Amino acid sequence: MKVNLMHGAGGEVMGELLRTLTAFSHNNAGGVGLESLDDGAIIPINGSNIVLTTDSHVVRPLFFPGGDIGRLSVCGTVNDLAVMGARPIALTSAMIIEEGFSVDDLARIVASMDQALGEAGASIVTGDTKVVERGSLDGIIINTAGIGIALRPVRDSTLQEGDLIIASGTLGDHGISILSYREGFEFGETLHSDVAPVWPIIERALAAGDIHAMKDPTRGGFAAAINEMAHKSGVGILLDEEKVPIRRSIRSAADILGIDPLQVANEGKVIMGIAPEDADAILSAIRSHPTGADAAIIGEVISGSRVVMQTSIGGERFIEPPLGDPVPRVC
Amino acid sequence: MKVNLMHGAGGEVMGELLRTLTAFSHNNAGGVGLESLDDGAIIPINGSNIVLTTDSHVVRPLFFPGGDIGRLSVCGTVNDLAVMGARPIALTSAMIIEEGFSVDDLARIVASMDQALGEAGASIVTGDTKVVERGSLDGIIINTAGIGIALRPVRDSTLQEGDLIIASGTLGDHGISILSYREGFEFGETLHSDVAPVWPIIERALAAGDIHAMKDPTRGGFAAAINEMAHKSGVGILLDEEKVPIRRSIRSAADILGIDPLQVANEGKVIMGIAPEDADAILSAIRSHPTGADAAIIGEVISGSRVVMQTSIGGERFIEPPLGDPVPRVC
Repeated sequence: MKVNLMHGAGGEVMGELLRTLTAFSHNNAGGVGLESLDDGAIIPINGSNIVLTTDSHVVRPLFFPGGDIGRLSVCGTVNDLAVMGARPIALTSAMIIEEGFSVDDLARIVASMDQALGEAGASIVTGDTKVVERGSLDGIIINTAGIGIALRPVRDSTLQEGDLIIASGTLGDHGISILSYREGFEFGETLHSDVAPVWPIIERALAAGDIHAMKDPTRGGFAAAINEMAHKSGVGILLDEEKVPIRRSIRSAADILGIDPLQVANEGKVIMGIAPEDADAILSAIRSHPTGADAAIIGEVISGSRVVMQTSIGGERFIEPPLGDPVPRVC
Repeated sequence: MKVNLMHGAGGEVMGELLRTLTAFSHNNAGGVGLESLDDGAIIPINGSNIVLTTDSHVVRPLFFPGGDIGRLSVCGTVNDLAVMGARPIALTSAMIIEEGFSVDDLARIVASMDQALGEAGASIVTGDTKVVERGSLDGIIINTAGIGIALRPVRDSTLQEGDLIIASGTLGDHGISILSYREGFEFGETLHSDVAPVWPIIERALAAGDIHAMKDPTRGGFAAAINEMAHKSGVGILLDEEKVPIRRSIRSAADILGIDPLQVANEGKVIMGIAPEDADAILSAIRSHPTGADAAIIGEVISGSRVVMQTSIGGERFIEPPLGDPVPRVC
């Protein structure tokens, strides 16, 4: 068998490849390890829950409306830490650079990473650089890994019946805006990526109430994330289409592109399952930060095993995880 | 300015690029950060010294005598942790794979990583996979990052006058054997990479005596590592060429290739500066493990700022850091 693009798309097809890539007998350091396929691992050290995660970034183009590969590479790892309930502490930066790459562009990327680090309250503490021959790589790839500390770790597999589902903001912005920009489409209003650290809103939400489960809807989008949460938790989800926040401009662009905005990556959003009695407090806490201004309660956890959307015209439809991401190279 | 291959070679030229790549204002999480350019960072958390490091691996070919990119990718990170004095605990595995890559080869790589993890006593606890279009990458790149715990952190900048210098085994094996294999040279005796986790020998050495400074001589080889240690520590080094362990087959191959075996990467070796009174105990401890069987005291720390080699024919020569690595894509 050969690896194909669908294998890297974060959807259902990826499962085949994951069986090969996770065949480690040494896969756990005492807490939450590789077998859980959560957004990061949890390693208990001397009374602290250290969360460890990694993310490689291959986005094209390198600079796009709302961000660039540098901002994305910091937010990708910070957000994986944050959705485990961890304050991001220290990140690594590993760059693989094609011979001939512009040092000025590198400087722009580093400055953008630094800006995002400031927003997240984290630091790049160590790094690695490899330069490869011209033609053996397409520009630059950035991997970041990072550690954080979780006072109360949060998993993606611990939704409870009766929980309310919060989306911390509009969905589909990153994937739809990148694709539109790449295709050179003009939509009147300019579309922007949402790439941002979500730790500031998660920190406020954790202080405001009881978060049972969290995940950031990156590759595969909201549809992949909500299905994974439901499947791992052994529950069903009932969503209200009217409540799901999607920008009008993103919806229009998605219609023209023929892509479901719920199936493309978000890079500054989080999906939470929360105790209903804490809903008002948590929603207010999230909305008090600009990154969470459009947060909304979009549904609830029910018994069952499917994710169902009550549509605005009164019907119901299943929200299925995408087989593969319709937008390659978005993260 | 454009990035060129010399920038990635780990030698002096890399310094230019490093100024761009380390221009972070958020560069330290309270312990040893990016500014020290050590093999890893140290982050004090709740009374523990957490060491964090990262390494990307672009070696060609992927499978070579003595190892493969999988074994290399685990040992690279484990060894960076180990030379900071840290027991390796948990690693990440981030693979970027070209469309069309063989899943059988992936399985071999994962099995080899797992084998090395067992030798090191560490685990892969989380990962990331990206698949990119055919032609946009040359096969596979693997980044690993990792954390360890250092009871007594060891730096590369803390040599003291009077210290003895230990090489934990023969030098030049990895770089010379890879290049020989790549060039298709036959040398009668087969050459092998030395790629191996050094934590088992460092653990024994730490228990046996006082290690003042350590570094693993990877890119740029022993010449780069010993000069960096001397420069950062503000000392000179006097080496005895007769004592420096180099396999006869490696020396012969290096002569034919016209490459200094002290300037190419090692992937299973460590250079230490130790208290002279502990020399016998530490040397015995290292030699008690197969990976350290050829360990030797090769010199001493003196006043001054240069690394000088007393040659076997009675003269002296400076050991200079290489400008760039003569062997690209060895790690």
